Amino acid sequence: MGRTSTARDRLRDSACELLHTRGYAAIGVAEICARADVRKGSFYHFFESKQALTIEVIDTHWQAQRTAWRERLAGPEPAVDRLQRLITWLVETQREEWQATGRVDGCLLGNLAIELSNQEDAVQQRLTAAFDEQAAFVHATLAEGVQDGSIAPEYADQTTAKAVVAQIEGAVLLAKLAGDVKQLDNLWPHVRRLVAVTSPRLERSHQLPQIS
Amino acid sequence: MGRTSTARDRLRDSACELLHTRGYAAIGVAEICARADVRKGSFYHFFESKQALTIEVIDTHWQAQRTAWRERLAGPEPAVDRLQRLITWLVETQREEWQATGRVDGCLLGNLAIELSNQEDAVQQRLTAAFDEQAAFVHATLAEGVQDGSIAPEYADQTTAKAVVAQIEGAVLLAKLAGDVKQLDNLWPHVRRLVAVTSPRLERSHQLPQIS
Repeated sequence: MGRTSTARDRLRDSACELLHTRGYAAIGVAEICARADVRKGSFYHFFESKQALTIEVIDTHWQAQRTAWRERLAGPEPAVDRLQRLITWLVETQREEWQATGRVDGCLLGNLAIELSNQEDAVQQRLTAAFDEQAAFVHATLAEGVQDGSIAPEYADQTTAKAVVAQIEGAVLLAKLAGDVKQLDNLWPHVRRLVAVTSPRLERSHQLPQIS
Repeated sequence: MGRTSTARDRLRDSACELLHTRGYAAIGVAEICARADVRKGSFYHFFESKQALTIEVIDTHWQAQRTAWRERLAGPEPAVDRLQRLITWLVETQREEWQATGRVDGCLLGNLAIELSNQEDAVQQRLTAAFDEQAAFVHATLAEGVQDGSIAPEYADQTTAKAVVAQIEGAVLLAKLAGDVKQLDNLWPHVRRLVAVTSPRLERSHQLPQIS
């Protein structure tokens, strides 16, 4: 049992790494097995297909990410500070990967969304669920921000929450293209504009350059 | 000569369509040739490799797009109105494709950036040049907006221009994932927040909900 579950985990971890760095169409079952050190004949004992394994990779990845999103967005601080903590953490995960590998592989879920949305219905549904949850997390935080006064009420809607997710994905795309995580240094200031924070501290920092 | 140039054009057009709908790794030279109705043996008379053809597709696509970007951003109107015209046109091109095919295939350049940035240096360089030009177009328009008073001076910088491009790419990614072009309906209002337009008309609409 121990050995069996290890082989399954190794297949999933290898697929996750290959999907993240190379994409779906570029990799095959043989390569996943070779990296996992699992015989190809055993693959189909665990997974019906590359698609089925990909869905498990998405589920496992988003399960871990979901916990991290929830933790960053929880706490007694004003909602805008919690949103900033989430963005800072997202950028930090890209930076750590960049320092370790010299590459920006971007967002696994965003990469697969771009590659497979029009081609693999089951994958598309899983990715849609994950991105909907991301937008719902942001939306809930914006609503809390209206209560604590850190978010402008007219910007605490569902479409703004989606625009925040879009800004994250788009900025990560450009950082991946540039191979440079420093492209994400301004992600938080830009997200902050989308949610039109009314914090006096922010207002001050905006006005400073115009005072002199 | 006429027939030769037609075969070459057909290969490029077929590759463009296949790259846009399915991506790079998922398609092969044989499939491109079949769709173009060109014998596979002839392919290498015109192109050294799938990569070389992909680079020509990118160049041809961005050459046409560049002209369209330039036209939408030119004119005597305030810069913010010209930026809105660009965004409206970008959304309209996605809508026309959606109406014709029932799909949102997204941005060809963004799709290839996600798939190939870490894997194909020559492609990455071409895409970087195209996205840098997009950001430069937006940046120039923001600078003009400072002059005509339609853009906030502190937001007319290079990083804001990149954030506008990121917002476009991220929103198109989510529309592609949803298979629904209506996800782009709010792209302009969100871009407008990023550039912090100081138009009195906009200020009024922001303050209306708080007046009563």
